Amino acid sequence: MSQKIPVAVLAATGTVGQRFVSLLEDHPWFEVTVVTASERSAGKRYAEAVNWVIPGEIPSSVADLVVEPTENPVEIIGNRAKLVFSALPSNAAREVEPDLPAAGYVLASNASALRMEPDIPLLIPDINAHHLSLIADQQAGRGWPGVVVTSPNCAVSSFVFPLKALNDAFGVTQAHVVTMQAISGAGYPGVASFDILDNVIPFIKGEESKVETEPLKILGIVQDGQVVPAGFPVSAQVNRVPVMDGHLAAMSFGLKSRASLDDVKAAIANYKALDSVRALPSSPEQLIIVREEEDRPQPRRDRDAQNGMAISVGRIQPCSVMDYKLVVLVHNTLRGAAGGAILNAELLAAEGYLGEKLQLQEK
Amino acid sequence: MSQKIPVAVLAATGTVGQRFVSLLEDHPWFEVTVVTASERSAGKRYAEAVNWVIPGEIPSSVADLVVEPTENPVEIIGNRAKLVFSALPSNAAREVEPDLPAAGYVLASNASALRMEPDIPLLIPDINAHHLSLIADQQAGRGWPGVVVTSPNCAVSSFVFPLKALNDAFGVTQAHVVTMQAISGAGYPGVASFDILDNVIPFIKGEESKVETEPLKILGIVQDGQVVPAGFPVSAQVNRVPVMDGHLAAMSFGLKSRASLDDVKAAIANYKALDSVRALPSSPEQLIIVREEEDRPQPRRDRDAQNGMAISVGRIQPCSVMDYKLVVLVHNTLRGAAGGAILNAELLAAEGYLGEKLQLQEK
Amino acid sequence: MSQKIPVAVLAATGTVGQRFVSLLEDHPWFEVTVVTASERSAGKRYAEAVNWVIPGEIPSSVADLVVEPTENPVEIIGNRAKLVFSALPSNAAREVEPDLPAAGYVLASNASALRMEPDIPLLIPDINAHHLSLIADQQAGRGWPGVVVTSPNCAVSSFVFPLKALNDAFGVTQAHVVTMQAISGAGYPGVASFDILDNVIPFIKGEESKVETEPLKILGIVQDGQVVPAGFPVSAQVNRVPVMDGHLAAMSFGLKSRASLDDVKAAIANYKALDSVRALPSSPEQLIIVREEEDRPQPRRDRDAQNGMAISVGRIQPCSVMDYKLVVLVHNTLRGAAGGAILNAELLAAEGYLGEKLQLQEK
Amino acid sequence: MSQKIPVAVLAATGTVGQRFVSLLEDHPWFEVTVVTASERSAGKRYAEAVNWVIPGEIPSSVADLVVEPTENPVEIIGNRAKLVFSALPSNAAREVEPDLPAAGYVLASNASALRMEPDIPLLIPDINAHHLSLIADQQAGRGWPGVVVTSPNCAVSSFVFPLKALNDAFGVTQAHVVTMQAISGAGYPGVASFDILDNVIPFIKGEESKVETEPLKILGIVQDGQVVPAGFPVSAQVNRVPVMDGHLAAMSFGLKSRASLDDVKAAIANYKALDSVRALPSSPEQLIIVREEEDRPQPRRDRDAQNGMAISVGRIQPCSVMDYKLVVLVHNTLRGAAGGAILNAELLAAEGYLGEKLQLQEK
Repeated sequence: MSQKIPVAVLAATGTVGQRFVSLLEDHPWFEVTVVTASERSAGKRYAEAVNWVIPGEIPSSVADLVVEPTENPVEIIGNRAKLVFSALPSNAAREVEPDLPAAGYVLASNASALRMEPDIPLLIPDINAHHLSLIADQQAGRGWPGVVVTSPNCAVSSFVFPLKALNDAFGVTQAHVVTMQAISGAGYPGVASFDILDNVIPFIKGEESKVETEPLKILGIVQDGQVVPAGFPVSAQVNRVPVMDGHLAAMSFGLKSRASLDDVKAAIANYKALDSVRALPSSPEQLIIVREEEDRPQPRRDRDAQNGMAISVGRIQPCSVMDYKLVVLVHNTLRGAAGGAILNAELLAAEGYLGEKLQLQEK
Repeated sequence: MSQKIPVAVLAATGTVGQRFVSLLEDHPWFEVTVVTASERSAGKRYAEAVNWVIPGEIPSSVADLVVEPTENPVEIIGNRAKLVFSALPSNAAREVEPDLPAAGYVLASNASALRMEPDIPLLIPDINAHHLSLIADQQAGRGWPGVVVTSPNCAVSSFVFPLKALNDAFGVTQAHVVTMQAISGAGYPGVASFDILDNVIPFIKGEESKVETEPLKILGIVQDGQVVPAGFPVSAQVNRVPVMDGHLAAMSFGLKSRASLDDVKAAIANYKALDSVRALPSSPEQLIIVREEEDRPQPRRDRDAQNGMAISVGRIQPCSVMDYKLVVLVHNTLRGAAGGAILNAELLAAEGYLGEKLQLQEK
Repeated sequence: MSQKIPVAVLAATGTVGQRFVSLLEDHPWFEVTVVTASERSAGKRYAEAVNWVIPGEIPSSVADLVVEPTENPVEIIGNRAKLVFSALPSNAAREVEPDLPAAGYVLASNASALRMEPDIPLLIPDINAHHLSLIADQQAGRGWPGVVVTSPNCAVSSFVFPLKALNDAFGVTQAHVVTMQAISGAGYPGVASFDILDNVIPFIKGEESKVETEPLKILGIVQDGQVVPAGFPVSAQVNRVPVMDGHLAAMSFGLKSRASLDDVKAAIANYKALDSVRALPSSPEQLIIVREEEDRPQPRRDRDAQNGMAISVGRIQPCSVMDYKLVVLVHNTLRGAAGGAILNAELLAAEGYLGEKLQLQEK
Repeated sequence: MSQKIPVAVLAATGTVGQRFVSLLEDHPWFEVTVVTASERSAGKRYAEAVNWVIPGEIPSSVADLVVEPTENPVEIIGNRAKLVFSALPSNAAREVEPDLPAAGYVLASNASALRMEPDIPLLIPDINAHHLSLIADQQAGRGWPGVVVTSPNCAVSSFVFPLKALNDAFGVTQAHVVTMQAISGAGYPGVASFDILDNVIPFIKGEESKVETEPLKILGIVQDGQVVPAGFPVSAQVNRVPVMDGHLAAMSFGLKSRASLDDVKAAIANYKALDSVRALPSSPEQLIIVREEEDRPQPRRDRDAQNGMAISVGRIQPCSVMDYKLVVLVHNTLRGAAGGAILNAELLAAEGYLGEKLQLQEK
């Protein structure tokens, strides 16, 4: 009999849902026991309901699970799972996600609905594991026996890593970001080929405001049970490019303290998560890979670094308008979506939110 | 017998050379009489020597011209042309281009070799036709009976248009540009498909320094027979994207005077070239097209506006780091290369540098 | 006052509908007066209702037309148009198209619904203008005062041209076709970029049976008021490739009579439509362009030949399994859809089905 | 100390060379000890000399090897390797490859130079392991103490698998193949993006004759120390498509014996290599994967099946011109190039051509 923690995946047939299912195959701590999708898919075997579009085959352990409807997840899940991953679209998430912590579940959501609530961690374990301190107030304030943590927008999950390293080392005064985002970020069917072949689209609905606000919450400090966001402005211009996976961002930034180019490179290259985070199963061995080649990082060549959980940074150079500029890449559906949410859940498990603290492996 | 001005095209078999040949078919003033290429192609009919890769068929008037070697263009051209277009690579341009004005030819070059010489116009007629005043000093200082003007880098030919409009109206204090450039900018064979399919390359050799310096010369003032460049910093991060034609740039900028969003839009939309420039055969009816759709301009959909001679601007919005930001698009091998150089030559012809001033048409 | 024939375009906001609207701008004979679309768009100005995704801008003459609902086209159109173009999807076409000829309209349909009806011409003027003789029986048999003609599937519109030339010259015994079809053939949004970037899809729903049957009707003979299809087998394997426009087909075929390679090339290159067809406004000057380069035709380089109304053929060579093989290209949304249907209507107009025969120009 | 067989990789810096180096990292039997490249790279560390363009990082065990010149490989390799993999271009291969078996080495070549020599196996272990019987005559006839085997063209490595299964089961009378080949098949820089973006090229130099002749040798029988090729005609039309990896082929074929659709599917799905071959380290668990989905196989989704060593077949259906048709996919640089050659070498090792027979693992 398996001793793993049983988990439910909401919206398991979408592209992020598929990534959850794929990444959770053979996960050392978690095991998928419940998959939900829209009414239309309910009652079918997962393998029949899903239009599997991500790499690899459908994990056999999930292929035969019967898909259940996403409405009333609390009723559906019952005691068959303790941990819930949500890949719900924003509207659905807003409606049903709060029910889960209210009913005692631990919810790691990839949806945007609850991200900016001041008592809900917008969590990247490698950056702001200390935001877990919000949970006590979240539970007290809302009367929730359960917990919810959220993971950020996929484009944010790129540049916020070097930004954290820089802010810790020198203080950041401002940041300007232009993204070039992969089509997988829009899910399936998502971006029409008619729109994106031989083209770039300088617009993604609702994205720029997320890219400008979420990093500040992530880098914020916890005060009186709420996050006080970081105080510098972030400006974003987002673009969709004909690339399958991997969001690239060109970032310029100002620093409070004087720093040489070498200082900047070193601060980014040497940035490390807490040891307790680095010991989590999905943590990359090397978090930020600084590339010295003049033409890297590139989406196709660097997105899979460290199983898609590392961040690649390159072209760090002085900027004549702000202080420095660089290019940063994330695998948007691994670190930037399902992988990030799983890492969040691993942190919760390690910290005892899912029962007894789990024994971490040496890395 | 044709009354058109006979012209030579140097490096006529490359991709920019092909654009010259294509655009000059049926040109009202100019007629191609001499085409040159590398030693390897010399002696062949143009149609045999060229690997025609641009849209349309080889103009029949040029197909049967015999390709001549590019070395010693003065000797080669003789009195068979008065006007010379150069699509030479930088090194070759540096060597042979100065010989042409020295021998009395009028040279409109698309090469980078002479662009930054202080007495040589880096010319965009719609922006700095007054830089032609450099020519008198150029001729006097160098003892040249002929003339040379240059056209800017193809990526510069995008954002420098709104920058000019903004600088005229409000004064620009700084500009930050991230480009997403088409593969045709690299010529043929240029970018390997192995590098760019499903990918973005955040680097183009030598490009960022051109993008940061050329706009300042273009927007500079003429003083004592030299250009004094504009005084604000431009910072650039350039990227290659899997797009055939059309360079897109995301630009943020600061302004000296206070300006509302409507002021900014109006300044850009209403910017006009001099009437004398607008009357040139290759001038677009509308120079800058401001798109109000939230997702435009896009390379594939907007690059051909006004026969590829217009600039498309969109997504003008406030920037939380600088004052405003926008997105701008140019057809890189039309306005941004051969079309721009032909417009330059038309201005020279209209101003009498190629003999009697030509009669301009009403538009 | 315009003397042009007023026309209605059904489903005018789809991608084929947009091509109709675009091609009919400045058409010498026809003028768009009615545009229809789904209920959702009805009541809006065309420019507001349409998501214009094809090259060029919305024709100003149509931009301000109010979109009307497609249901009950007879009632909607009234006496505001005589000629109707249909870009309806198959199901809608099946329901409403027969009403139009029944009410006296001349309908040139691009839909598949009525294509295989034995008394309805599946018309390519350059190939089977004589199938118009079906109309008398169509009208008599169905009691229709009006007329309907249909144009074939876009992939068929490629290889059926050389097939016609070959069948006329030597008799064809069999043909095997593998298509590589552009994404524009699926309309908008059509093919998801998630499916087609860095990929080929060896399947298009319902396509193979059309590709195998329609050519035989087109090449059939008219007997007793019905088409008797050509008697040889056509086998098709269809594929979707990441190309915007232009369907490429690799075809092998057997011939009844012995023919040398030169005979085959000559038969294809010299094939000509009837003079009366060649005089139609949308007829290409050269119908089939035989390319001698070893690597042509190619979709991006050849699709726009003759305004997208020519067929390009290349790589004609012996086949060790059948007799010969070749590669053939059509612009799928011009000749292969809207352009083909307009040519059909021009033929009907020239033959007097829309009133007095129109005067044809010399070409 | 390593007990592995030391191997040299000729042309190790090209794209196929990189695949060799990548696949041989942690190979259970082989270990790269010598890497060669052109004069220009000689003397550099491999990591410096190579422009690493394939997925993953450069194996650390090879990164520090000093690249040696490819000329005179016998002299260069000396006794530092027993087994040699060649990724040489055809011309270079023709010159230097014969020296290697003549000097006692075991050469597994991916080059085309020696493929069609009647006494040299054109080897696919899963298909014609019995062709190793040629080696005795090869050695006797040429006086070679060493051995050479070759692996076929990458496009052949797709359809020849189902062809073998069909020929064994029913006899094949003819086959017609249209390929859609990935750009990685052309190496680096290979296909210009200027040629292939938004395009298909219906031509690959020299490819069609290889695709038509090599399968017949592979399926031939050995008689008197020579291969007698299979006797049916294969006709090929090859195309380059904008896909990174994975050659897709649409094949129609005739059969000697009557076979139902189910018979055909079963013959393909149940085809198995010899047990001795299936036990080789690089053999896939399942050789031919028959997909039942109507739209598979697809290059991006199926190329990596079984580490890129499986063949995916789909869309098996009756053909109205020949008997049946299907679609087949191979990963062109894994099974179709480096992976295939490594499997060949494994077979040679297992059969004792590299010293004592190696112990095979159970699968």
